[in-house]
Amino acid sequence: MDEASLKALLQQVKGGKVSVEHAVGKLKDLPFAELGYATLDTHRSLRFGFPEVVLGGPKTVEQLLGIVGALVSRKQTVLVTRLQPDKAEALLERFPKAQYHPEAGIFHLPQGKPKAGIVAVVTAGTSDIPVAEEAALTAEAMGATVRRVYDVGVAGIHRLLARREEIQGAHAAVVVAGMEGALASACGGLVGIPVVAVPTSVGYGASFGGVSALLAMLNSCASNVATMNIDNGFGGGFYATLISRTQGRR
Amino acid sequence: MDEASLKALLQQVKGGKVSVEHAVGKLKDLPFAELGYATLDTHRSLRFGFPEVVLGGPKTVEQLLGIVGALVSRKQTVLVTRLQPDKAEALLERFPKAQYHPEAGIFHLPQGKPKAGIVAVVTAGTSDIPVAEEAALTAEAMGATVRRVYDVGVAGIHRLLARREEIQGAHAAVVVAGMEGALASACGGLVGIPVVAVPTSVGYGASFGGVSALLAMLNSCASNVATMNIDNGFGGGFYATLISRTQGRR
Amino acid sequence: MDEASLKALLQQVKGGKVSVEHAVGKLKDLPFAELGYATLDTHRSLRFGFPEVVLGGPKTVEQLLGIVGALVSRKQTVLVTRLQPDKAEALLERFPKAQYHPEAGIFHLPQGKPKAGIVAVVTAGTSDIPVAEEAALTAEAMGATVRRVYDVGVAGIHRLLARREEIQGAHAAVVVAGMEGALASACGGLVGIPVVAVPTSVGYGASFGGVSALLAMLNSCASNVATMNIDNGFGGGFYATLISRTQGRR
Amino acid sequence: MDEASLKALLQQVKGGKVSVEHAVGKLKDLPFAELGYATLDTHRSLRFGFPEVVLGGPKTVEQLLGIVGALVSRKQTVLVTRLQPDKAEALLERFPKAQYHPEAGIFHLPQGKPKAGIVAVVTAGTSDIPVAEEAALTAEAMGATVRRVYDVGVAGIHRLLARREEIQGAHAAVVVAGMEGALASACGGLVGIPVVAVPTSVGYGASFGGVSALLAMLNSCASNVATMNIDNGFGGGFYATLISRTQGRR
Amino acid sequence: MDEASLKALLQQVKGGKVSVEHAVGKLKDLPFAELGYATLDTHRSLRFGFPEVVLGGPKTVEQLLGIVGALVSRKQTVLVTRLQPDKAEALLERFPKAQYHPEAGIFHLPQGKPKAGIVAVVTAGTSDIPVAEEAALTAEAMGATVRRVYDVGVAGIHRLLARREEIQGAHAAVVVAGMEGALASACGGLVGIPVVAVPTSVGYGASFGGVSALLAMLNSCASNVATMNIDNGFGGGFYATLISRTQGRR
Amino acid sequence: MDEASLKALLQQVKGGKVSVEHAVGKLKDLPFAELGYATLDTHRSLRFGFPEVVLGGPKTVEQLLGIVGALVSRKQTVLVTRLQPDKAEALLERFPKAQYHPEAGIFHLPQGKPKAGIVAVVTAGTSDIPVAEEAALTAEAMGATVRRVYDVGVAGIHRLLARREEIQGAHAAVVVAGMEGALASACGGLVGIPVVAVPTSVGYGASFGGVSALLAMLNSCASNVATMNIDNGFGGGFYATLISRTQGRR
Amino acid sequence: MDEASLKALLQQVKGGKVSVEHAVGKLKDLPFAELGYATLDTHRSLRFGFPEVVLGGPKTVEQLLGIVGALVSRKQTVLVTRLQPDKAEALLERFPKAQYHPEAGIFHLPQGKPKAGIVAVVTAGTSDIPVAEEAALTAEAMGATVRRVYDVGVAGIHRLLARREEIQGAHAAVVVAGMEGALASACGGLVGIPVVAVPTSVGYGASFGGVSALLAMLNSCASNVATMNIDNGFGGGFYATLISRTQGRR
Amino acid sequence: MDEASLKALLQQVKGGKVSVEHAVGKLKDLPFAELGYATLDTHRSLRFGFPEVVLGGPKTVEQLLGIVGALVSRKQTVLVTRLQPDKAEALLERFPKAQYHPEAGIFHLPQGKPKAGIVAVVTAGTSDIPVAEEAALTAEAMGATVRRVYDVGVAGIHRLLARREEIQGAHAAVVVAGMEGALASACGGLVGIPVVAVPTSVGYGASFGGVSALLAMLNSCASNVATMNIDNGFGGGFYATLISRTQGRR
Repeated sequence: MDEASLKALLQQVKGGKVSVEHAVGKLKDLPFAELGYATLDTHRSLRFGFPEVVLGGPKTVEQLLGIVGALVSRKQTVLVTRLQPDKAEALLERFPKAQYHPEAGIFHLPQGKPKAGIVAVVTAGTSDIPVAEEAALTAEAMGATVRRVYDVGVAGIHRLLARREEIQGAHAAVVVAGMEGALASACGGLVGIPVVAVPTSVGYGASFGGVSALLAMLNSCASNVATMNIDNGFGGGFYATLISRTQGRR
Repeated sequence: MDEASLKALLQQVKGGKVSVEHAVGKLKDLPFAELGYATLDTHRSLRFGFPEVVLGGPKTVEQLLGIVGALVSRKQTVLVTRLQPDKAEALLERFPKAQYHPEAGIFHLPQGKPKAGIVAVVTAGTSDIPVAEEAALTAEAMGATVRRVYDVGVAGIHRLLARREEIQGAHAAVVVAGMEGALASACGGLVGIPVVAVPTSVGYGASFGGVSALLAMLNSCASNVATMNIDNGFGGGFYATLISRTQGRR
Repeated sequence: MDEASLKALLQQVKGGKVSVEHAVGKLKDLPFAELGYATLDTHRSLRFGFPEVVLGGPKTVEQLLGIVGALVSRKQTVLVTRLQPDKAEALLERFPKAQYHPEAGIFHLPQGKPKAGIVAVVTAGTSDIPVAEEAALTAEAMGATVRRVYDVGVAGIHRLLARREEIQGAHAAVVVAGMEGALASACGGLVGIPVVAVPTSVGYGASFGGVSALLAMLNSCASNVATMNIDNGFGGGFYATLISRTQGRR
Repeated sequence: MDEASLKALLQQVKGGKVSVEHAVGKLKDLPFAELGYATLDTHRSLRFGFPEVVLGGPKTVEQLLGIVGALVSRKQTVLVTRLQPDKAEALLERFPKAQYHPEAGIFHLPQGKPKAGIVAVVTAGTSDIPVAEEAALTAEAMGATVRRVYDVGVAGIHRLLARREEIQGAHAAVVVAGMEGALASACGGLVGIPVVAVPTSVGYGASFGGVSALLAMLNSCASNVATMNIDNGFGGGFYATLISRTQGRR
Repeated sequence: MDEASLKALLQQVKGGKVSVEHAVGKLKDLPFAELGYATLDTHRSLRFGFPEVVLGGPKTVEQLLGIVGALVSRKQTVLVTRLQPDKAEALLERFPKAQYHPEAGIFHLPQGKPKAGIVAVVTAGTSDIPVAEEAALTAEAMGATVRRVYDVGVAGIHRLLARREEIQGAHAAVVVAGMEGALASACGGLVGIPVVAVPTSVGYGASFGGVSALLAMLNSCASNVATMNIDNGFGGGFYATLISRTQGRR
Repeated sequence: MDEASLKALLQQVKGGKVSVEHAVGKLKDLPFAELGYATLDTHRSLRFGFPEVVLGGPKTVEQLLGIVGALVSRKQTVLVTRLQPDKAEALLERFPKAQYHPEAGIFHLPQGKPKAGIVAVVTAGTSDIPVAEEAALTAEAMGATVRRVYDVGVAGIHRLLARREEIQGAHAAVVVAGMEGALASACGGLVGIPVVAVPTSVGYGASFGGVSALLAMLNSCASNVATMNIDNGFGGGFYATLISRTQGRR
Repeated sequence: MDEASLKALLQQVKGGKVSVEHAVGKLKDLPFAELGYATLDTHRSLRFGFPEVVLGGPKTVEQLLGIVGALVSRKQTVLVTRLQPDKAEALLERFPKAQYHPEAGIFHLPQGKPKAGIVAVVTAGTSDIPVAEEAALTAEAMGATVRRVYDVGVAGIHRLLARREEIQGAHAAVVVAGMEGALASACGGLVGIPVVAVPTSVGYGASFGGVSALLAMLNSCASNVATMNIDNGFGGGFYATLISRTQGRR
Repeated sequence: MDEASLKALLQQVKGGKVSVEHAVGKLKDLPFAELGYATLDTHRSLRFGFPEVVLGGPKTVEQLLGIVGALVSRKQTVLVTRLQPDKAEALLERFPKAQYHPEAGIFHLPQGKPKAGIVAVVTAGTSDIPVAEEAALTAEAMGATVRRVYDVGVAGIHRLLARREEIQGAHAAVVVAGMEGALASACGGLVGIPVVAVPTSVGYGASFGGVSALLAMLNSCASNVATMNIDNGFGGGFYATLISRTQGRR
């Protein structure tokens, strides 16, 4: 509530147009719903144009049914990430209009048609695809048009060069890579758009579950690279779509 | 060079309108200048609308004079980061129209007037200001309007709340914080714009030179946070400005 | 035994009121019980007003039955932490008056009514609840009144602000958070009471099993935050209750 | 502002006893002072009974003079930590009533007589004393009575045993130790009060600048041990004094 | 395509001997095959004299059948590493002429007879043999003659001394060792040939899954030691064979 | 073979008392037996008075049967460590006179009666006992008299003090502790004998699988503490027994 | 004080032969001297046959003069380690009979003639000599005969083999090595005596200030290797001499 | 000495053609020179065709003069690495025919003309040049022809593509890169020769002194990449030259 609205409200109190009780309610009203085990941030869709996303993995089926139900009853799009197949089944039974993408672990129940720009999703190898799909499906759920450019790692750099135009034409690119994570820098150097780098835990030995790729991305010699947490495909897709929407939001 | 231009060029060769030598030149021409110790990427300003930025710290005065001279002769804006005062003095003597900001270590010699959007630069404490200024001056050099929101760390969260509107109104925010780096998440949760988090090496003991803040930012529970390398104010300012320009670029 | 009691005892020896053998026994008597595989510290309840707590996880059922039996025979409250359900079943069969809380892995067999102050237990997310319950049940077993404030992480800071009074009114707060652990600093900044921060292993990738949250808490910019080991809900509840009792103990 | 006061204020607005402008001012008034480079949290002394403490190390003399002046003008006690001798000299010239303790790097300008309980400060070795003094002087500045128990590390455990009563009689103990940090556990096992463990960077090789002691303290087998950041003597003293005051605060 | 060929091609276009369409095809032709989920680098066998090797572990049976089929149809040798037995079975059914080595997890379908030099494969212990066999079988698939020198770790250095001549006579040696990895230095000091060190995850505790051996190898006091990733037997065998072929390649 | 023996042998060759063939045999004879997959160091029992110990864990039953058989045929004591129960069963069937201790994972087939001194084995908690038993059984197999002092960790330091004499009377002590590993320093400070510290992986969170205890032991403020690898009970028992035998060996 | 002496003392109290005051004094007398900033453990020389060693580095000249004076007045040998030359000068002025070894940073003021066995000190390279000398001088101060075997690292293993007998003939060996630390395993495998491994911070890059050598030593495949902290030459010499005296002590 | 030569020698002893003393000398002769503080491995030039290289940094001028003198008197090429300018001056005074390259810290005194193949030395940035020059000068000292390809990092991948042929034509390439180290993979993917990757400590923040680049290189998705220690330019040049000489050695 900004100063102007506050002043207006108080004027109404003064003028008797609004009761003290009503004003107290207005001023102390907090923008969330209390479920006991969860406190839903229902104003979030105002802030982002997209509701709170639910991390499915560690929650019980009961908690998930409650949270999804609360969102649905508020007519908000539902996106559950990292959802195990067995929990997905229980949710789909209750909410048959939803879709579940097992490879990416994404459960999606859309409301309305959000709009966003173009997002390229690029992977170094075949093994990075599950994380990339988490990014791509998130972006699509948020209204983005997604261009998938898969298996173009730097061990054969000509594969990336051949698809440069396609990436350059997007508003933002999500680059998904494990092992040494060099694709983020190589791609960042080739295109003039913001690159959201997502390291994956693909690799073994001194890849340390994605730390090697993470460090490479943080140390990128290309200035247009920002980094997400390891395997955080959802975050990559969300952030890139946010960038692609910067235009429309204002 | 895309397929259509290639075809057109070859048609001109076939038709004798363009000599073989000229076409060879066109096709083999590589977009950089070789200085011996450095290979300037002069096409970069086409890709980003901003030329290659020079990391000043580890370079000798001779190398810097050569590189800056080469950029100036190509009429490109020059931005040197992490420049020590004594080297700055030598550069300023040769290029008196440039400006040097000692706190942020930035040397700037503008050419033309680039245009970009609004970037908020937010810091947790007073000690984070040098890195924040590196971000702010970079953004300004690239044409952004910068809103400085300093010393609003989470130990007194009402200071941040009081300036929420100011940040929310920008196209992107650079959040600069050391110690536990909690400001990135707190700020990300309050505003609906892309947040570029820059951890700083401010702190001691288990802050491990910024690693603690870096990890906090990578693990942010707010989805609109992407992370830069420790103390990389330049990267934060560059990336946020790139986002703010996404609109104009297309 | 302090100097005065020592002197008194020796006076009694001198005066023949106490035999040499008895005095030897007094002086060499050590305050623990030897079970072979375990050495119970039975004087501990004198020091803390609460007996030694048993870490259940790595012990065998036989060892647990022996240890719990020894405590019960000394009429001491029993608290077993990290107890697996199958071992709990065996213990409950033998000690049917005890209670087992499977979510928190806590086995409790109370003796008498301990008294302590008010402890707030605060969590960032739904996934932090098991560790929080370990803290809350420990505090309750030690006589504290517990206020549960769950799912109020910084990604939606208004949820925390709304419950500030409730936390501030406690003698100490246990703040349980994974991922970037920012809640400890945010909460510490809002309230003027000692905060005991418990990082959880909730998160993935660069959360490194709770290390990210742990570092954030150790580096907290709020001075009223001290930190426990990762997932150590028991320790958090124990320590906060100890603080809440500081008053009554003297 | 709680609901009752809010209601009262609105009643006064309604009744015309308070102007709309005044109410707006009341409601939007934020409890801090903006210095440009710093945002002082002047309500902090209400929350903690002690004003914001200033980390002196990374600030310039100009910033420090401004901040200390602002606190003094609000009649608040000033405590600057980690202050270098040359900056201290400049501050002492302006504020001659203050005291500077060079070993601990503490600058103190008291206002009024705060009251707190008894705090024991215990060190493992002679080299831990500077950090211990930071803790002790902080506690004394906050009104605590401090008992110094120095150089009682576990390599000669009888030295600790001999002073057990002295520590046990305090409300809380700050245990300061480097190298393997075993003193925190040994001391925690001996006394029934809350122990605030402060690891120091004393040691070499695999002590890793205090990490070894830090880990030992986090993993303490004694339940009454909570841990501060490496070398954070100030934090240890602050936290222990807060505990010792729990009684008086309510 | 070098400048001369480019000039020749353009001359042909000019002279009408080559159509514009054909030249476009030539110039834009990219040396890889697109499978959707994978982009095969079919020119690789020209670069290395050995086709792209497929990392089997994280791929699905369907992906593997597609990739192996594509390579076979191009008459290229197939080498799949880290292949699980159940996937191997599916591949063998389709490609019965191939061989599968379960201990080393290697699937091999040869085409033609490659030629290379002599490679020694040396292990510290019996437990290092699976990684060593991955190296040895890779080298043999690439045409090398392999000398296996197993279980000659430095705890009994005379075992290594007794077989020194055998190793010295090879073109390159792959040294496979876990635990403290000292064999690489000891072997490197004894022979005058390039040593490719492969750390293994054999060991426990502070071996940290091979990191201890990795660090030892990187810090080798012998100058003729270069290091591969942990457990990367394939890489060791590939690299040593490449060295052994340096002679024949020119 | 020292210079004198060498000279004597050559004199015998010169004088025709020893054939050239015999001398070649003598000089080239190497003190180990080659099994193909293992190279037994059969001279080891001369060096240590105890044969090579076999790490059972990663070896196959076939390899173990071969190695144990080879040792038995040379009339050497067999000690296999970290042996899984199923493999132990197969070995016991073939070598029924052997003993298997499942808790410690030790398989023992004695030959003769070795002699050694007194070794104390001390543990911090009940959970450290498996590693301690590995140490104790190894020491007993090597002829030592073992004094077990279990569950005397520093959280109740009087338990350790009560058994100080018992430890002090040994030639060397193995101190086994997880969590913060403080027992090594406390025990080292109390007794004047060499302490062999064995960190265990007991603990959770920031114990990092024993790293915390390991670091504490390496940084011990007691000078009579040397450290073994995490969970290396065998090494601790072996080393302490070696110390206890120093007398008899010379 | 054991039970028998306790009983005897109490009998004397009973019989009036010893006053209560005297007995109190006896029983409460603690074996250390309090200097204010240091608590000297004067009974240590009874436990170890060697007094407390003083770590000189972090102490002030005043503290050192006080501590050394207190030891001298008790007629105890003084050994100060890691002493800087300027502090040494001040000590030598006051105690002119002492000796200072600047390379090793050791200050030594002997009292009487301690006796110990033979200790070999072995280094990998020339750069490891300062740490080795710290070990050797410590051992000599404790009465050991030291055999120096320097610069025999595994990059030229024949150098070590040539001096094997010399090492084998000692009671214990201190092996000092940086970089990959392989010498500890190689030496441990060659000799049948206890090896005390001291990693040094010699090296660069991935040697991480000695961590690489430390890990190699902890993971040694030779069972007769125990490890000291990085650069802890004093500890190595102390521990090896303790072993060498095990014989004479009983 | 192999069996045949041994047999022949013994035959000569038997036949009286060689005296026992001479044979003893032959058999016990060890291939090194003892300087007291250093043990020169003078047979090394036989093994590698290049004598032992001296690490200059940590050695004193006296030690260096002694070692270099000993090598010169044996007519061996001298290469001292990491030599500080002041020490170099002292060496040059004594050995005026030598050369010192201050940027690379290399001191070189050649004897004869070694022969080797072609080595490419490639750097990512200008700041990597000192390490690259250490590699290049080492390779040249060993007889290699060096191709310097500097400042071709992946942020502008076309710079690397333009010089691909030059690198591909070498026998081996040393790739020197800091920050994210992506150049090793990109270069390895482009050329079919062995790549020796040298990470540099160039970078800041999360580059951790070269660890980030080191990990990237160890995890390279290109199979023809082996890795050296951080900043080990000498090792890279040595190893690549060794590969390039494979042909001539046999």
